[in-house]
Amino acid sequence: MAADVRQAFLGSFFHTPTYGSFEYLEDALIEVDAGGVIARVVREDDPRHDELVRAYHDSGVLVELGQGRYGLPGFVDLHVHACQWPQAGIALDEPLDRWLLERTFPLESKFADVEFARTVYGDLVRQLLARGTTTVVYFGSAHLDATVELARACVDAGQRGLVGKTVMDDPTANPDYYRDASPRKAVEETAQLIREVEAMRPDAPQGVWPVITPRFIPSCTDEVLRGLGNLAAEHDAYVQSHCNEGQWEHDTVLARFGKEDPYALRDFGLLREHSIMAHCTFLTPDEGALFAQVGAGIAHCPISNAYFASSVLPVKRLREQGVRIGLGTDISGGFSPNMYDDIRQAVMASRMLETGVDAQRPEPERGSGDARISVVEALYLATAGGAEALGLPVGTFEPGRAFDLQVVDTCLPYADLTGFGVFDAPEDRLARILYLSTPENIRQVYVQGRRVIEK
Amino acid sequence: MAADVRQAFLGSFFHTPTYGSFEYLEDALIEVDAGGVIARVVREDDPRHDELVRAYHDSGVLVELGQGRYGLPGFVDLHVHACQWPQAGIALDEPLDRWLLERTFPLESKFADVEFARTVYGDLVRQLLARGTTTVVYFGSAHLDATVELARACVDAGQRGLVGKTVMDDPTANPDYYRDASPRKAVEETAQLIREVEAMRPDAPQGVWPVITPRFIPSCTDEVLRGLGNLAAEHDAYVQSHCNEGQWEHDTVLARFGKEDPYALRDFGLLREHSIMAHCTFLTPDEGALFAQVGAGIAHCPISNAYFASSVLPVKRLREQGVRIGLGTDISGGFSPNMYDDIRQAVMASRMLETGVDAQRPEPERGSGDARISVVEALYLATAGGAEALGLPVGTFEPGRAFDLQVVDTCLPYADLTGFGVFDAPEDRLARILYLSTPENIRQVYVQGRRVIEK
Ligand SMILES: [Zn+2]
Ligand SMILES: [Zn+2]
Repeated sequence: MAADVRQAFLGSFFHTPTYGSFEYLEDALIEVDAGGVIARVVREDDPRHDELVRAYHDSGVLVELGQGRYGLPGFVDLHVHACQWPQAGIALDEPLDRWLLERTFPLESKFADVEFARTVYGDLVRQLLARGTTTVVYFGSAHLDATVELARACVDAGQRGLVGKTVMDDPTANPDYYRDASPRKAVEETAQLIREVEAMRPDAPQGVWPVITPRFIPSCTDEVLRGLGNLAAEHDAYVQSHCNEGQWEHDTVLARFGKEDPYALRDFGLLREHSIMAHCTFLTPDEGALFAQVGAGIAHCPISNAYFASSVLPVKRLREQGVRIGLGTDISGGFSPNMYDDIRQAVMASRMLETGVDAQRPEPERGSGDARISVVEALYLATAGGAEALGLPVGTFEPGRAFDLQVVDTCLPYADLTGFGVFDAPEDRLARILYLSTPENIRQVYVQGRRVIEK
Repeated sequence: MAADVRQAFLGSFFHTPTYGSFEYLEDALIEVDAGGVIARVVREDDPRHDELVRAYHDSGVLVELGQGRYGLPGFVDLHVHACQWPQAGIALDEPLDRWLLERTFPLESKFADVEFARTVYGDLVRQLLARGTTTVVYFGSAHLDATVELARACVDAGQRGLVGKTVMDDPTANPDYYRDASPRKAVEETAQLIREVEAMRPDAPQGVWPVITPRFIPSCTDEVLRGLGNLAAEHDAYVQSHCNEGQWEHDTVLARFGKEDPYALRDFGLLREHSIMAHCTFLTPDEGALFAQVGAGIAHCPISNAYFASSVLPVKRLREQGVRIGLGTDISGGFSPNMYDDIRQAVMASRMLETGVDAQRPEPERGSGDARISVVEALYLATAGGAEALGLPVGTFEPGRAFDLQVVDTCLPYADLTGFGVFDAPEDRLARILYLSTPENIRQVYVQGRRVIEK
């Protein structure tokens, strides 16, 4: 019983330390230190296991998950437009320009009202936590004050938040009622955000970070892109944006700079190690190689992509190229705050990419071939993959990583995942959790060793 | 206050009487007669509304949905393999032949045990009801006794069930441990099922029907297909099967009969009015015209299709051809028992069919173009569309239809669908229910006027 262990969690856990396979820790003991970091994982067959369980039990620091409950790592959601939370599921049948101009921009502009921001952000952070999402990369609105509120909402609720003020300064591309007043103002406010969020660190053992956030190249001037790139270098800060989401973005950037989106971002200093780029569905093999070389990460948003990207991210190819990939819900281009929905859609979309969609075409013209990913690979993306993209020690139950946990109860009367004792191998139990669980099955959530949800 | 009205429901309701649009009945009164049939819908602006509400209230037959709750029609699920319920979500990453031979057939063969069947079927019927599904077309296993249990489970739980014993008699196509002993035995047992299920009618005001159920052509001999076709004509019975799901099925049937699947089914007398054919993703325009002419229905299973059909059903084209289409979960080719998941997937898949999936192909080669359906159209498929395929008076809140209701509570702490008062038009409220509701939001379910779920 190590001196620095403050809590020990006894139960059965699933996680994915390596891409493509999972590990099942049955009746294991996870020791967590005072900083909320995993000190040691003691397996059931370890000779010290039973004695340690007794000792932690006697000293009152043992937490037992309980019968029929399983622990999974908290999810890492790489792409959420926090200020679009009230728009989730709304008007997705409208064309993109109407969706943006009549719905999204008017909504985002409401976050000039800090009270409104506080209400919406407080709710969003709590709802994501309750669905097992413990680390989130957020786009805020274009307002500094509201974005500071978003960071504070993460700190207060105990969620690990990476938070950016959206920059969109080009007067020819954005509505007058909702854009940055000038490139200079946008860069200044971003610098201010960095200072304010960094000042919150002492209150956030789980971590909180500012993120430099140009909306996407077509909504920004060259001047602001240059300014933000300089800021990123100066503060060695996180950057997030959208990249290569569709034909229009691809063509627009190419026409403006004579080079594709990823090269333009790189040349502005915005495609860096641990930069998070949403979508990237149009990445060519060369552009994938650039991402791998730079160490930039992709926020794969399979639900949103079905609506807006006109294509499926070739996860298998990009993983093989060495690109870091995590999952994003992309609220509200994606309707669901539930990462399990994106895990499922990531699998389905990959199979549709592989085999194609239109049976009236001859077979060789249908799909890309060899593109499917497994549901266990999708779980990796939602946990360890997101962690890898961000370079944060989270996403698995390994010593040295933060203890972020969701506890899934498989024995609820209307959401039972036990399956009548048929197909009861660990891979089957995990598959049932990944495919059939509902938010109701998640009963407790911990971030950095601290319990933040208890239903 | 009409004499034959036994209950009156006061609340706000959404339904889709015509394809492509929805109707919102705010604070309406739905009068239901002793047979569970809707007698009248009294809108809020009807001059008799308030007086009727008072009268029903005073006579103790008023049911109020309550604040923040909305009524939707119960779902019609056109395709469920009841005996695959323990397999839901399992092993979907395995190739189809292993999935079938190592998982599905061994599982289905367990239903020789009637006790096991009773346990699984009782649970499945209750779980589907709890998710708002009030009418279901079921494949049972190949066992007569277990399939009778399935019908009884529907009767006992108050679900409207259409139930078939799966026929799979070809010894060259099915494992010896799990198939019909002979074509004659298969037809006899199907005839016996028809008698036994029809004998249950008096106990099932909501209705219960036998369904003639050849698994699909490749698992059946000519003799059994002929025998089942004759039985269908003799009893004017429902028929269900799989049709044109993929390239292999298409090619196999063509090689065997020199004609495609739909024509072969028709010539055996199995493609009839209100026959339900699952998948049909490979239907050509000519075959679509055949379906429309015959009045056969399609069970569109968008989740399952992502795994096994290598294509997306062209719903828009087939609807324009006049084909009747409903939705099916296809448990366990589809993982989810929740029809909302299929509504969402129907929309996403239609958009992926329209725009394509592979960004590395030139744009004109990507999608089929013009294929998207709206979420309201998907709701129609899940309710009125299924009803139309079956020729049953259910699926909307119109006089003469059975009163099948799911009550959705939009105000749960961890599944709130109210949206901060932003985007609060009826179409937005409906979109939130369709995209964001979880099974937990469904608090009550009625079938044929009878409450069968109360959480
Ligand atoms: Zn986005
Ligand atoms: Zn099927």
